[in-house]
Amino acid sequence: MKDLFENSSGLRKVAKEIPLSNVKIKDNFWSHYRKLAREVVIPYQWEAINDRIPDAEPSHALKNFRIAAGIETGEFHGMVFQDSDVSKWLEAVGFSLQTHPDPELEKNADDVIDILEMAQRPDGYLNTYFILKEPENRWRNLAECHELYCAGHFFEAAVAYYNATNKRKVLDIACKFADYISDTFGPEEGKIHGYDGHEEVELALFKLYKVTGNKKYLNLSKYFLDERGAEPDFFDMQWEERGRKDFWQGGVKREWGKTYFQTHLPVRQQESAEGHAVRVVYMCMAMADVAAETGDVELFKACKKLWKNIILKRMYITGGIGSTSIGESFTFDYDLPNDMVYGETCASVGLAFFAHRMLMIEPKSEYADVMESALYNTIIGGMAQDGKSFFYVNPLEVNPEACEKNPTKHHVKPRRQKWFTCACCPPNITRTLTSLGQYIYTVNEETIYTNLYIGGEASISLADNEIKLIQETDYPWKEEIKIKVFTEEEIKFTLALRIPSWCPEAKIKVNNQVVDIEERTLNGYAMINREWKASDEIVLILKMPILRMKANPLVRADIGKVAIQRGPLVYCLEEADNGSNLHEIYLPKESTFEEGFDSNLLGGIVVINTEGKRLVNSEKWVNKLYRYEAEEEYIPSTIKFIPYYAWANRNVGEMTVWVREL
Amino acid sequence: MKDLFENSSGLRKVAKEIPLSNVKIKDNFWSHYRKLAREVVIPYQWEAINDRIPDAEPSHALKNFRIAAGIETGEFHGMVFQDSDVSKWLEAVGFSLQTHPDPELEKNADDVIDILEMAQRPDGYLNTYFILKEPENRWRNLAECHELYCAGHFFEAAVAYYNATNKRKVLDIACKFADYISDTFGPEEGKIHGYDGHEEVELALFKLYKVTGNKKYLNLSKYFLDERGAEPDFFDMQWEERGRKDFWQGGVKREWGKTYFQTHLPVRQQESAEGHAVRVVYMCMAMADVAAETGDVELFKACKKLWKNIILKRMYITGGIGSTSIGESFTFDYDLPNDMVYGETCASVGLAFFAHRMLMIEPKSEYADVMESALYNTIIGGMAQDGKSFFYVNPLEVNPEACEKNPTKHHVKPRRQKWFTCACCPPNITRTLTSLGQYIYTVNEETIYTNLYIGGEASISLADNEIKLIQETDYPWKEEIKIKVFTEEEIKFTLALRIPSWCPEAKIKVNNQVVDIEERTLNGYAMINREWKASDEIVLILKMPILRMKANPLVRADIGKVAIQRGPLVYCLEEADNGSNLHEIYLPKESTFEEGFDSNLLGGIVVINTEGKRLVNSEKWVNKLYRYEAEEEYIPSTIKFIPYYAWANRNVGEMTVWVREL
Repeated sequence: MKDLFENSSGLRKVAKEIPLSNVKIKDNFWSHYRKLAREVVIPYQWEAINDRIPDAEPSHALKNFRIAAGIETGEFHGMVFQDSDVSKWLEAVGFSLQTHPDPELEKNADDVIDILEMAQRPDGYLNTYFILKEPENRWRNLAECHELYCAGHFFEAAVAYYNATNKRKVLDIACKFADYISDTFGPEEGKIHGYDGHEEVELALFKLYKVTGNKKYLNLSKYFLDERGAEPDFFDMQWEERGRKDFWQGGVKREWGKTYFQTHLPVRQQESAEGHAVRVVYMCMAMADVAAETGDVELFKACKKLWKNIILKRMYITGGIGSTSIGESFTFDYDLPNDMVYGETCASVGLAFFAHRMLMIEPKSEYADVMESALYNTIIGGMAQDGKSFFYVNPLEVNPEACEKNPTKHHVKPRRQKWFTCACCPPNITRTLTSLGQYIYTVNEETIYTNLYIGGEASISLADNEIKLIQETDYPWKEEIKIKVFTEEEIKFTLALRIPSWCPEAKIKVNNQVVDIEERTLNGYAMINREWKASDEIVLILKMPILRMKANPLVRADIGKVAIQRGPLVYCLEEADNGSNLHEIYLPKESTFEEGFDSNLLGGIVVINTEGKRLVNSEKWVNKLYRYEAEEEYIPSTIKFIPYYAWANRNVGEMTVWVREL
Repeated sequence: MKDLFENSSGLRKVAKEIPLSNVKIKDNFWSHYRKLAREVVIPYQWEAINDRIPDAEPSHALKNFRIAAGIETGEFHGMVFQDSDVSKWLEAVGFSLQTHPDPELEKNADDVIDILEMAQRPDGYLNTYFILKEPENRWRNLAECHELYCAGHFFEAAVAYYNATNKRKVLDIACKFADYISDTFGPEEGKIHGYDGHEEVELALFKLYKVTGNKKYLNLSKYFLDERGAEPDFFDMQWEERGRKDFWQGGVKREWGKTYFQTHLPVRQQESAEGHAVRVVYMCMAMADVAAETGDVELFKACKKLWKNIILKRMYITGGIGSTSIGESFTFDYDLPNDMVYGETCASVGLAFFAHRMLMIEPKSEYADVMESALYNTIIGGMAQDGKSFFYVNPLEVNPEACEKNPTKHHVKPRRQKWFTCACCPPNITRTLTSLGQYIYTVNEETIYTNLYIGGEASISLADNEIKLIQETDYPWKEEIKIKVFTEEEIKFTLALRIPSWCPEAKIKVNNQVVDIEERTLNGYAMINREWKASDEIVLILKMPILRMKANPLVRADIGKVAIQRGPLVYCLEEADNGSNLHEIYLPKESTFEEGFDSNLLGGIVVINTEGKRLVNSEKWVNKLYRYEAEEEYIPSTIKFIPYYAWANRNVGEMTVWVREL
């Protein structure tokens, strides 16, 4: 079958997501993390934006708004994009309230929204840095100052909160601001022909369009995308207009060039993921949104090119992206160093969101596979198991001594950090967790796609019918997924079950009858088309053998090495289980694995043990750095793998995903 | 036998170097490079300091002096240490004139010295940056401004030029400046209790002491060494006194900390090589000089600790040092990344010079081994075979695409550069080449040590006798070294012949009689003690099998890999001979080598061929980044090694020293 999208000659057949409030998650794996998001992270964020974290630099984020609102005095403090911390909290609150009402939390949010309303200028503008600190420089440094980026995060928050509460006030503030932006930017004469240095407003305007139905926002989103990369270069022009000055401390180095901002080419002509990884995927999210909504095949093809470039040439096996800390950027094809990696948590969040949007256009399992990999490895690994510390950078190989003593690795941390001056990653994890219900299913006219296997209950509208699906599973630990279907009346539709690419063998039974998967599999989904009735039960078995994964030989960093994967989980070795000098451990080709669930370890995980070999650092090497006639000696050594997401929850130590094969 | 030095309970038995003019090099390997130094590099340097290089930023170095001399008008331009470029040229000229008189060159040098004399202030001070640009800030930022560093390079030049010409003028200028420095710095009240951020003046003052006999300079050198690392921190105090300001553009980042400057501890307490690699070895050179001269056992022990730390834990197999570009610094034990390396050419020059000084205190072959390795691999590799371009950074693994597209590797260049804004490496190579005769022999009361095997003729004074030695060899290509001894009268002394650590078997014949080496070997030297007479002939055979070198298992970067060495030369694979994707090449454990001299390749080299294996990048990998069930396939593939020093003299391409073993 061809691509649904391309096949439809301009007519779109785009799947929808399920409203968040219609999906209740009750899952042995995820409920713990979602609870942490609600009970630890969101309250911590609230304390942070209120400057109540002991021993931490005050955020000043809410204070800036109160000063701008005229209800407090003082000066602006914080990053130029400090406002977005408030929006990120508000968005997570919005998602959380959609599934877990909490009057006290809602009251806090309403109070914040009142302050935002007061802070908003009469023309609609709302950005405390430029209101308080440099009112004369509004919109004068789009490359560096994140004005539209901050606007975008506020729009996302407004939409999430409106969806949760149906209260219009925050949406009205957002629309007033968006209307002002629309009056300010655009192709018409007298408007600014430009865009933001950090993509975000594009996807946010699209959300605002979807919730308000106001096409102006869709058009503005499309305008920002299409203007990007146009000649002459907008950022260069602003640079000249400013007299070649950066007016923000810690601004973006101009020598990083246009690729950093994805302005080296018009977005439709970009064929590889270049520059700042988070920006790339945020841009791609908006491109996919606009392409799907407007039937813009050319734009969709550009999305696919960027997607293919990322997942076939520039993505870590953990779903991490961004190979260098310098510019938090992509580098080039197959350049995936494990110890020098950036792999920002936010970038994997964006990649998962991009995958989700692609999935709604084309129901192909490759999108869900990547979304799943990012979720189960890098994103969840970005947070400690107590929800109190976070990774910004997600390495695949860590030697703590190198992080401390080799300055080229200072960005790689062997332990998660409390919070960050630039607090992007923790809230991005929070919003992913609180909105997780959105990614499990997609639906179009006749098919319900099951993209993720997460326990819980979903109500799905399909051709005027309300279908209820209940998933029960111990995924990703166990192979069985039970799905119960409830309908008021018998109804014919297709339930499409994703068969992940890591799964060598799947079995499906419907009401205890084996279903032939092979003949029904389309684009990685087993399409179960039948007359469904209440209490139909599907049992899906996804075999989870322990896989020896190899990387493409062009990936220099992984040559001669193997990574262990079971189900969606990539595994790793940690010093806590295997001692130091992990580089001396080899995995023989013939070694077999033993797996077992250890409920006492790291919140309960499937542990994988095997007979490995360890290079002997013999006496011959005392007082020798180099020598000849030095045949290696090995001793047998039991080695123990744990899931990558669970690393760095014990003492600081070494970790590696890729292990040498012997 | 114990260390000569420690054994002598304070009485020193220090070997001497041979005056440069007494050593005539006529060597198949080195004469070419020495000729390049005289005929290409020194003239190029002259053009450079005279601003006559087309398409290059003018150096302004001599112009600054002419302006300071009052014979031209204008402003200072260049780096704060621009003066040192003139000194480095003058020093190389001084060395060159000692063996190759050249009246025109001498005339140019005399003219420059006249200008220096006019530029010198009445008090003796001589530094054009502070004379012309910031006279009020003299000595106020020793951490960053290289004032004493520049002074040191001038002293070294003065000594070399005086040794060549016996003309006192330049020495007088130097002494006047040194006297002024001695009046300004020191432990006495009213003097500055400090030292320079970049060690250099210490070793230069020592040279000035040796040539003038003025102990004041020795004492000042020792003072600078002993003051370093004292509390309270001198650089911190100056920083406070300056109102916490750097006053030089591009200054040294304070956050690099004290280790960058080797001020984290008093030098006698330092046990590991920390911070900027060139500074460390320049410091060590002075420490060794002062220790040898004053019999300071404690200081010598500190030298040995630093030496051992470098060569046993922090040195590349090529004699390169400095594992990170950030601060051009050492990092930590066994951290020797091949592709992220710094390995500055200057640092290897300094390491060779440090080794040479240690060798004069303790005649142990480990010093000469390292000196030889640095000379034959990194130092000579730092210059192109036409003498027209130079490496600053000397990587052991290069992928040109990574150098271009991964910004963490921008400092690694796949081709040598014309010159540098900070022009330290090319002149450092030049002075090494022009002074090469100094390192071949050392001599004490009864022994002549042959440290390097380089063809030519040397006149050596030993106990009132003049011994002439003639070396004839095709080293490092051939195993045979012939040494002829000429004396006026019969004389008993020991000729000590170094048996390099890479040599598994050596043979010596004296006048065609086999000599038992084993019983005569002491500290890596075969001690041939006899009554020598004219026309005695020694034939030394140093077996040069092709060695499979391994690194200590704690060197993570080299695990599972092998490096090829033959004689002193480390070998490498280049793309020009082996195609791209060198990481896909494996060297089987059982493969045998064929060697052959190719006179047409790269100036004539011994090439090493062997049967390797190449990983097949099969069709299975099309459109796959990661997969399971992916057994590697290999095909036989002839691979060709060339000497590391000769790399990057053809088209830009990949290179690797360490090759995976299968």
